[in-house]
Parts: sequence; C-alpha cells; structure tokens
Amino acid sequence: MKTHKVKIGNLPIGGGAPVAVQTMWKDPLTRNLQPVIDQLSRLKQVGCAFVRFAVPNEDAANLLIELSQKSPLPLVADIHYDYRLALQCIHGGIDKIRINPGNIGARWKVEEVIRAAADTLVPIRVGVNSGSLPKELRQEPDISRAMVTAAEREMDAFQQLNYESIVFSLKASDINTTVHANELFAEKYPYPLHLGVTEAGPLIPGVVKSSVAMVKLLEKGIGDTLRVSLSDTPVNEVITGQEILGAAGMGINRPAIISCPRCGRATFDTHSFVEKLAPVLYGLEKNITVAIMGCVVNGPGEARHADLGITGAGKEIILFKNGEILRKVKEAEAFEAFVEELEKL
Amino acid sequence: MKTHKVKIGNLPIGGGAPVAVQTMWKDPLTRNLQPVIDQLSRLKQVGCAFVRFAVPNEDAANLLIELSQKSPLPLVADIHYDYRLALQCIHGGIDKIRINPGNIGARWKVEEVIRAAADTLVPIRVGVNSGSLPKELRQEPDISRAMVTAAEREMDAFQQLNYESIVFSLKASDINTTVHANELFAEKYPYPLHLGVTEAGPLIPGVVKSSVAMVKLLEKGIGDTLRVSLSDTPVNEVITGQEILGAAGMGINRPAIISCPRCGRATFDTHSFVEKLAPVLYGLEKNITVAIMGCVVNGPGEARHADLGITGAGKEIILFKNGEILRKVKEAEAFEAFVEELEKL
Repeated sequence: MKTHKVKIGNLPIGGGAPVAVQTMWKDPLTRNLQPVIDQLSRLKQVGCAFVRFAVPNEDAANLLIELSQKSPLPLVADIHYDYRLALQCIHGGIDKIRINPGNIGARWKVEEVIRAAADTLVPIRVGVNSGSLPKELRQEPDISRAMVTAAEREMDAFQQLNYESIVFSLKASDINTTVHANELFAEKYPYPLHLGVTEAGPLIPGVVKSSVAMVKLLEKGIGDTLRVSLSDTPVNEVITGQEILGAAGMGINRPAIISCPRCGRATFDTHSFVEKLAPVLYGLEKNITVAIMGCVVNGPGEARHADLGITGAGKEIILFKNGEILRKVKEAEAFEAFVEELEKL
Repeated sequence: MKTHKVKIGNLPIGGGAPVAVQTMWKDPLTRNLQPVIDQLSRLKQVGCAFVRFAVPNEDAANLLIELSQKSPLPLVADIHYDYRLALQCIHGGIDKIRINPGNIGARWKVEEVIRAAADTLVPIRVGVNSGSLPKELRQEPDISRAMVTAAEREMDAFQQLNYESIVFSLKASDINTTVHANELFAEKYPYPLHLGVTEAGPLIPGVVKSSVAMVKLLEKGIGDTLRVSLSDTPVNEVITGQEILGAAGMGINRPAIISCPRCGRATFDTHSFVEKLAPVLYGLEKNITVAIMGCVVNGPGEARHADLGITGAGKEIILFKNGEILRKVKEAEAFEAFVEELEKL
C-alpha cells in the first residue's frame, strides 16, 4: 500500500519517494552554531536528508530556529513534555516536529500543536517506543500489537482535526518486536513510517540489529524514512543507513565498497587505505563498485567486476579497472592515484 | 536437513551443534608468538571458537604448527597453490585445513591431501568464492548456481575417496548471490556450511552485508559456522558474529546491550561509558540485558526490562535493576559501581 506523502521543507517523505536517511544531533546546542552547520554539511555529503534535534527548553528552541535559517538540511524538533516548545518551533519555521503525545499531557495541548502545524503544513511525527507505552498497555502479551494500539490512540486527535501530514514510528530495542509492529501498522494505515530500532546499542550491535530489522521491512516495501540509532557519531548513523538501503536493493548513486579483510598473505595495508578512503567514497554520488584488496590471491581476480580497484602484488601496488591492470604505483602515491582515477569514473 | 558432524580438535561443527564463530588472523606470523597467543585468548574470551591463518610458505607452516601447540583455540591452515603445505600442516597436527582445490592443481595432489587428512580425521574446508570461479563457469547467467557447480566438482574427489569430514563455503561479496548459493547447496548436500560474505568491506558496510545475509540463512537453519570478513580487527569480526547469532535468535549466554544514541537531553556520556564497558561485557558468559541510557526521558523507564542499567538524571547517575532504582553514584565512580553490580548478577 502506498503511503501518504508529506513534505519536510522541500523533501517529500512517503507516497513512493525514495527512503530518506536521517539522523539525530547528539549534543546540546550552544551559541557557537558554525561547527554545527559545518557538520550538517558533512552529513548532507554522506547522504543525510534531514536532522533531528532535542528541544528540552526555550533556549534550545531559539537556537534551533536560528540554526534552521542557516542549515543546509531541513531540521526536526524533538519535543517531550512541553507543548509550548512545539508551538514555538512551528512558528519559528522548523520543518518537522516530533512529539510523544503520551507525555505532552492533556488532549487540548496536543490539539493546539496540531492546529499550529496545520497552518503551515509542518508534518508531525508521532513516535511510539515499546519502552514508554502507556501503563495499561504494558501488560499486553503481544507488545507489537500494544505499540500499534498506542499509535492508534494518538491518531485519533489528528483524525478528528482532519490533519494528515503525519508520520508514525514504532520502535523497540528488539528486532522482532520492531518488525512485527511496523508490519501490523503498515497493513492498516496509509501514514508514512519512520523506521528505527531504539537504543540499538554501540556501533556493532546497533548496526547488526538495525540492518536485520530494517532490511526485513524495506524488502516488504515498508518504511519511508529511517534513522539508525547508535551510541556512535551521526556520520556513522547515516553511513549505516545508506548501507542498509544498499543491502535492501535501494541504494541509489552511492559507491559500493568491497575490500578484503587482509590476512597473512597481504602485502598492502588495506585497513588504513580503506579508512583514509571512506570519507572520500561516502561523499561521492556515483553508482560504482570500488575494490580494495590485499594480495594477488584475491585481487584483481576476485574483484574483476569492480569499476576501480587497487591491490598489493608483492612489493608493487596495482590499480585495476574492470579486471584490467591500469597501472602500477608506489605505496606512497597509491592514495592520490586512486582518488585521481576515481574522479575520472 | 541436519548436516554431518565434523570435529575441529574437540569442537563439533554441524549435526546440530551450536553455530561456531570463527575469525582469521590478519598478519604474517613471526617467531614472536606470545602476542599472538595473548590475542587468541582475548578472541576466545569474546566467543571465538577457532581461528584461521594464511599459510603461504613452509616457514609459515612451521610457525603455525608451533603456535598450535600453545594455542588456547583450535587453528585452521588456509592454503592456496601448494599441496605440500597442506600435508605439512596435517602431519604437524593442525586441526583443520582450508584449501581451494581449484588452485591446488592436479587431481592427484588434492587426493594426497585428502588421504593425509583421512589418517587423522582432520576436516577440510572447500572454499568456493564467486570471484575465483573456474573460467568456464564465470559466464553462467546464475552465479549462485555456478558456485554450487564449482563446489560439486570439488566434492567428487572427496566422494571417490569416501572422505566425509568436509565443510563447504560458498561466498560472494553480494548478499543475494551468497544467500542463494548457500540455499541451493543446503537443499542438496548434507555437508556443514561455513557462512561468509567475502570482501564485505570496512566495518559498517561489512557488518550490514554480513548481518543481512547470515541472518537470512541462519533463520532457515542454514549454517554451521560463520566468519564475518571485515577490513577491521579479528575481535570486531567475532563480536559481529556473536551479534549476528543473537539477531538470528541463537545468541547463547552473551549479554545483550541496549544503549541510547545520546541526544541534546543527555546528561551522561553514554558513548564513552559504552566504549569502556564493551570489553567487559563481551567477555561475560551471562544471558542478561544491560542498558546504558543518557537521560530520564528514556531510562530507566524504556529500559525497565534490563537486568542492569545506568542512566544520567540531571547531575546524578542512577543504577537500576529490572526498572527499580538500585543506587545513585557520582560520575567518577559509575564505571566501577556498574561492573560491581554486573558481577553480582
């Protein structure tokens, strides 16, 4: 079922638009906004579509509004407890609001936020988390179903006010609960879904859980935007998101990297080469495959399908293109030569 | 279909034994073996069952044999081109051999390796990689099927000599090719399968691709051992392997970590705490859930199911157990207090 389309600034979400990768800012904003703007540009470069910020108080809301006027990406205000912060952000031109209606309090407060959003068509995400379900739903034997019930309760206020520019998320820290809750929701409702596994953990466990859960959903056509939640940097959250889209067959215009794990045969330090190259690669909008190989057992043979590759071969380093040797270079010149060839592609 | 059981030293693989996580050593061995032994102990601690080493020449074989006499884990010799290295390792007591029969050369050489292995029941893994298929199979339209055909050709020598202590792997750098090749193989043959996505890339893309491919197979009951191939450390390969087993519902006796991604609300630096805690957690053989949360919006509420948790709460830090507050601590004492409570569980 095709979901409704909403717009975050100029960015369409849902209704068949490409799945947008987002992330969340991890520190409180201060008056020193320039480093944040620089980092937002970097996030945009690696494929981030928009960024969410926690807004715990009025000062934070003011700073976010100021930031939004200079930001290279649309911004989302994440609000708990105080509905006035949501109103402030909407009036200040923030592109999307996330609320947890369960902790906003009285229904009239939620309605006031919806009315303000409706004036300027600012989309609102309703975020349901398995860990913060209303008390009476916590004892349900099927947590996924309880999460959908929680979402349905929040839906009511929006439907009463006939406001359709909404996005839902149903997150748990467990893969199966997350997958099942989103499947149940997507069967019943046409609202765009924001996918995420909440509190997924440090880098490795977080990437494993998010990959498995999100690819299962994306392969069923479920999910309109996604955020990988990691105890790690926003850049790594976005890179993981891009890789997840690639794994689900939805990676568009991003290089695929294959690289050998290195072993006792390797004569070329692939790890440090890959580390140096990654920021360049994730900034490229090219639908190419790049191979970084350690030795002649694996490269160029095993990577002959790569658009560009590099491999150690005894004391030499070889650049190759579609399985054909392009040229030999010295280790000290390898990086520069590789980037040069990359730009030619 | 239950696979045959083989034994790597005392470790059973296949026939319903728990899926074993393995890794590969990344540097050439030198006479200085003690640091390698120390690292093998660390790998064992994080859940590694055995470790493979490249054996490119006679010196490497001698060093590996010496290492195997002091190693806390069974070792595997990875051999290309020279069948005599395989014979040397088998006679030297190495617990498993991996060969790529396609590059060992004449059939009689492969047969000699099989006969030597049969004397002491040393298992042999036949590793088929999509990138190094025999020339005439490379043009097949269905690469997965071509990989199975390549495996079948290698199978013949073993069947003629009636040697069943074999393991197969069918690896590609692409998720779908890998999954499909292993499905096709598992439908037809009872040999244990070693799962892997080859040249999966740097940490993030490698973890994404390996997670998606391996969980798909493991959930179908396919796979007896696995190796996550990353351009990263062996410890991270093993941790990823453990997390993949967890994601497939096969994690046994390992802590599950949930931790919040941190945001502008957080008053507690979860990232550095998680980083410090990870080595402790991955060394524990306890079936517990541990939560590291940044603020009171999420913890302890969202992590009330955790066996042990920690969260920032304004200027304080709170330890909690099954949703109940255990005690408040100062930031400087938080780590020690947490480890203390962890040990009590």
